[in-house]
Amino acid sequence: MSAILFDLDGVLYEGDRPIDGAAETIAWFNKNSIPHLFLTNTTSKSRSELVQKLAAFGIKTKAKDFLTPPVAARQWLQANALNRIALFVPESTSEEFSDFDLVTGEDSKVDAVIIGDLGAQWTFELMNQAFRTLINNPNAKLIALGMTRYWRADSGLQLDVGPMIKAFEYATGAQAIVTGKPAEAFFQAAVEILGEAGNVIMIGDDIRGDIEASQRAGLKAIQVRTGKFSSSDLVLGITPDTILDSVADLPRWWRSNM
Amino acid sequence: MSAILFDLDGVLYEGDRPIDGAAETIAWFNKNSIPHLFLTNTTSKSRSELVQKLAAFGIKTKAKDFLTPPVAARQWLQANALNRIALFVPESTSEEFSDFDLVTGEDSKVDAVIIGDLGAQWTFELMNQAFRTLINNPNAKLIALGMTRYWRADSGLQLDVGPMIKAFEYATGAQAIVTGKPAEAFFQAAVEILGEAGNVIMIGDDIRGDIEASQRAGLKAIQVRTGKFSSSDLVLGITPDTILDSVADLPRWWRSNM
Repeated sequence: MSAILFDLDGVLYEGDRPIDGAAETIAWFNKNSIPHLFLTNTTSKSRSELVQKLAAFGIKTKAKDFLTPPVAARQWLQANALNRIALFVPESTSEEFSDFDLVTGEDSKVDAVIIGDLGAQWTFELMNQAFRTLINNPNAKLIALGMTRYWRADSGLQLDVGPMIKAFEYATGAQAIVTGKPAEAFFQAAVEILGEAGNVIMIGDDIRGDIEASQRAGLKAIQVRTGKFSSSDLVLGITPDTILDSVADLPRWWRSNM
Repeated sequence: MSAILFDLDGVLYEGDRPIDGAAETIAWFNKNSIPHLFLTNTTSKSRSELVQKLAAFGIKTKAKDFLTPPVAARQWLQANALNRIALFVPESTSEEFSDFDLVTGEDSKVDAVIIGDLGAQWTFELMNQAFRTLINNPNAKLIALGMTRYWRADSGLQLDVGPMIKAFEYATGAQAIVTGKPAEAFFQAAVEILGEAGNVIMIGDDIRGDIEASQRAGLKAIQVRTGKFSSSDLVLGITPDTILDSVADLPRWWRSNM
């Protein structure tokens, strides 16, 4: 292995407290100049906000080391030379797309329609606007910033981006390109950024979203016993390449396996 | 054949004009007391409004002869002894459910959540309410009043009930029970009402929604060359049991085949 991808929640921290040893592990990877990226499906925080959040846990990172769904989407659009885009994403995310030609009218020519978790900003009229933009542009790509089903907002459980994408896919017959875990394209974007094809390992707490998904994308994967891990995860027929008690054990494992 | 199911739009009328001979055909079935039902996916009109619409074309019908998605849903709920329901349907449809115990709080115990085309009444909060009612009642059935993708409203194309169902299915992992064409359960509900299992034929203009769907449900099917029929429909690998120029030819065909 010559590079590593870190999941955030459940690996470096749990809720609002850091995992013991997480800060030391990241410092070790920085000191040894081992290429790494932080992968998250979060679209409610920009990369600079993520840097701040980790800094509060004593974990030093740089904005360019985060791969988020909007960053992967931007990279995919650029690689495919698509420039005219319609954005349905929260304010915190839209800054990642400032280089593109933003189109608003639903009758205008559009190369791609980008859908994020707009939460309470969704109205039926806004849903129809996204839908009609797609119907009026049969060749436009539908880009999903993740496929999260729902999350726990202060007011209770709330629909996330995934259900909206399913609605638009069914209404238009389009198949979304998902930039976020567990989509293969998301891990491939990470490998491309690192330039280390074939030698990248993922460390995560989610047996499906991190382990199974990265293995499907041709990576190796380390399961940690923190975060959402439960021992029943290991009887699902998914076999992590390694299991560690926590991210604190990673430097020792890395030294003895490289 | 001892009973027949009529599709409405494209068989008895096209837009706002009746098909020549449709009124005479229905009169003939009435005179000969041949059991029949009118099947439609419309949820924006109650059955009494449908009776009025056909009367304007000179076609005499009774409200009890219409099978609509809400009527099929009601029958299915009663057959399964489910009484506590949460309704997300337009006003015109809710009257069909007046016999049930209507539950509104999302934390209350619910047997079934009924979703119709609420159109502009959908808000993000109302979508979350339906979603949370389902999540809080893991055994509750998700009932879809049809799976129409979209329709042309005065203001332009507009999402119909199908995309919303796809959103709720994905968010909750539930699988909707669809009462409406082309769902098998919808045709079976019709057969049950008629009490003529094995001897029912469907007449329709939609090679997929009427012909293929009713044949899948074990019925025979007559394709008419009116409405949305196109001769290219006949090379799709679906074989109607009979093809008639229009519903006007039905009484003659019926006499010579019974």
